[in-house]
Amino acid sequence: MSKLRHVIRAEQLVDPALLDELFNSASKLERDDKALKLEHPLRGRILATMFYEPSTRTRFSFEAAMQKLGGGVLTAENALDNSSASKGETIADTVRVVSGYADAIVLRHPQVGAAEMAAEASPVPIINAGDGAGEHPTQALIDVYTIRKELGRLEGLNIALVGDLKNGRTIHSLLPFLRNAPGVSLTLISPPQLRLPGKYVRMLQEADTRFAETTRLARVQPADVVYVTRVQRERFASEAEYDAVKDSYRIDLHVADSLKARSIILHALPRTTEISPEVDQDARAAYFRQARNGLYVRMALLNYLMS
Amino acid sequence: MSKLRHVIRAEQLVDPALLDELFNSASKLERDDKALKLEHPLRGRILATMFYEPSTRTRFSFEAAMQKLGGGVLTAENALDNSSASKGETIADTVRVVSGYADAIVLRHPQVGAAEMAAEASPVPIINAGDGAGEHPTQALIDVYTIRKELGRLEGLNIALVGDLKNGRTIHSLLPFLRNAPGVSLTLISPPQLRLPGKYVRMLQEADTRFAETTRLARVQPADVVYVTRVQRERFASEAEYDAVKDSYRIDLHVADSLKARSIILHALPRTTEISPEVDQDARAAYFRQARNGLYVRMALLNYLMS
Amino acid sequence: MSKLRHVIRAEQLVDPALLDELFNSASKLERDDKALKLEHPLRGRILATMFYEPSTRTRFSFEAAMQKLGGGVLTAENALDNSSASKGETIADTVRVVSGYADAIVLRHPQVGAAEMAAEASPVPIINAGDGAGEHPTQALIDVYTIRKELGRLEGLNIALVGDLKNGRTIHSLLPFLRNAPGVSLTLISPPQLRLPGKYVRMLQEADTRFAETTRLARVQPADVVYVTRVQRERFASEAEYDAVKDSYRIDLHVADSLKARSIILHALPRTTEISPEVDQDARAAYFRQARNGLYVRMALLNYLMS
Repeated sequence: MSKLRHVIRAEQLVDPALLDELFNSASKLERDDKALKLEHPLRGRILATMFYEPSTRTRFSFEAAMQKLGGGVLTAENALDNSSASKGETIADTVRVVSGYADAIVLRHPQVGAAEMAAEASPVPIINAGDGAGEHPTQALIDVYTIRKELGRLEGLNIALVGDLKNGRTIHSLLPFLRNAPGVSLTLISPPQLRLPGKYVRMLQEADTRFAETTRLARVQPADVVYVTRVQRERFASEAEYDAVKDSYRIDLHVADSLKARSIILHALPRTTEISPEVDQDARAAYFRQARNGLYVRMALLNYLMS
Repeated sequence: MSKLRHVIRAEQLVDPALLDELFNSASKLERDDKALKLEHPLRGRILATMFYEPSTRTRFSFEAAMQKLGGGVLTAENALDNSSASKGETIADTVRVVSGYADAIVLRHPQVGAAEMAAEASPVPIINAGDGAGEHPTQALIDVYTIRKELGRLEGLNIALVGDLKNGRTIHSLLPFLRNAPGVSLTLISPPQLRLPGKYVRMLQEADTRFAETTRLARVQPADVVYVTRVQRERFASEAEYDAVKDSYRIDLHVADSLKARSIILHALPRTTEISPEVDQDARAAYFRQARNGLYVRMALLNYLMS
Repeated sequence: MSKLRHVIRAEQLVDPALLDELFNSASKLERDDKALKLEHPLRGRILATMFYEPSTRTRFSFEAAMQKLGGGVLTAENALDNSSASKGETIADTVRVVSGYADAIVLRHPQVGAAEMAAEASPVPIINAGDGAGEHPTQALIDVYTIRKELGRLEGLNIALVGDLKNGRTIHSLLPFLRNAPGVSLTLISPPQLRLPGKYVRMLQEADTRFAETTRLARVQPADVVYVTRVQRERFASEAEYDAVKDSYRIDLHVADSLKARSIILHALPRTTEISPEVDQDARAAYFRQARNGLYVRMALLNYLMS
């Protein structure tokens, strides 16, 4: 596999050798950070974070990662209102100019395909940090890293995906990793309106991945991994459509207790009502550890792309 | 006194040994900065500033402090609109995630008690940089530092507090320091609608602090310290209520000249009309020196909390 | 010439010795950057960027410049809404406080004269990064640097200025450099409503600069430099006035092909429709190289002002 330049789709990351390289690097970076022994391989390099849709957590984790590697950061917290986009500039032009100042660009954009367009125009690496209901590949990388770190492997696991499978881009980006892992079986739990789109269903079928679709939350019980998604208000055309499904599922203590002892609950966060705060104390609640892993996985990725 | 973890209420800082430690550190940091001899004790550490209410000056002073100590910064200039809060996330969840990326968090929030809630959820130090009409403890620290630096002591001073004593959180945070200083006498000058709330009046009474309440600005004359507050539009329910009191008091050259030669005028800034610009040239106008002190006091505090 | 303190008007920069010093420094910084040999002369220093009008590109280029020189950055992406300005503070007060935290301040403001006011109040250098329809002197510096780098000289060139010459502050800031260069002749191409204001016409007349005013784009043909400006929506009182002129001129492949082989097309960017994307591949399209030059020219300027 040739060296990765831009990170736009999860598909690009589904290479065992690449995953091993990145994940070993992430583990080492975590050990070095905790021992206060981090080196600064990206000293003198600059990362630009351009967020056309708000996401403090994703932005912070990339910016912390860059700074821990010794690099500097240019940040556009609210690029939609404050940047040249509001003056009618294309994303291609913006990227061409910003690539003159930064050694890599992290882009979040409400429009599917925006990162792809940016990559075509950019001489420096573009990292897609979410393009509308499209993809969020580095989140998938973190998810896979977390599953392997928590459970030792991806192979053979029973993984339940719960919530908005239609619009949840973290789910869409995770599927290419799951379908390729031998022996994985998926339980897709969603309201009828929020089922996994046909193109992803076909992707699973073509890979001969075992999966079942259901509307019943009780089907989480045999899962090793319960991956919960937020029903995102911003993806619905009307408040009524959102209200009809927003509280479809709720992982509370009762549900958590029904899971296997060695299972884990994941969530890309932020959550609203889909996981009760009371579950946080349960050892199976791995979502805050998952968020923390984001720092090291993104450090590994930035280091890989820029050094 | 056990080592301070979070800085939420001014009360936590009212310890003579702690104050001496912080203020000596601030003085040393100022000398080192001016001699371009600053060391970087917080190299590799990261501070997150999360502002759910705008305040460029407070944010800048914390961020400058952190960078001068060698650390990095994650900044959310407008966290209310741009962060997960807009997606319905609780402050506790936000803090749990951000604490995975940052070694301390500075929080400004419009809601009284927000910092307390954040501290309960956070494994890293939370610094309250203002919670609605609640507290702003580091401002009080700066105020006390400034009084001691300018006048050599807090003890025995006559201190006039002028303006909105009802909503002014800098005043509320300053009182715990003042009531404990031997021989301090306070003159509380405000319109009737903006008197010091009962709970603070009782705090003074219980400590046997000498104080007098008045509506007359002329009562500032014998003061050693005249602490002026802005009447904050954002704390009033209607424009009419604000208009009725906004120009209650104005320190102009005439008032300044009526003060003692060795007195000082303080203000946490920003000001609007309550101090005339013509007063700025007067040696008693200490408010810009006070703002500058903020840098060193906050450096001392960050260094204390994180190293 | 005494050492420059604040950078407010282009006029201040029109000194051959100063230009040589800055441009030589910019060239050296570019070489060192590309060889990964940058030193960090501004280590420990802090730059504040205060943008009361959005401009991600200009802000990024200053912030990248500062960080590449080893310094830190305080950033206010949207100072109008988020800073003390919204509480009624004057720009003079803001600058006095921020100068306590930063070693220099980059200011963009919608109001003509704002930078001048800031400079009067500031003990640290103020750099005007655009004040309404006033000036944008560092852009002019970049433009002159680019012309000299691309064509070897400014002297004797035929320079066409195209578009909104009335409101285009980059044009206004460029004129003091052009009128002083021996043998330069200018072609001023604009719709009748957007002609160069009288005060600038008189400036050219007093300097005996050769210039012609026209509404015909075809007059670009003999130019060595075609400097295109965007018609800025935000400078018009009504949408109708804007619509009447916004598409006055368009540099497409046909126009580009009519130019001399050794000519260059400049634009301060962002562009909307005034230059077709198809022109980007043409060697004469120098606007992205011009943007990149901004990094090094601003590094040279920051280094000059702060070290």
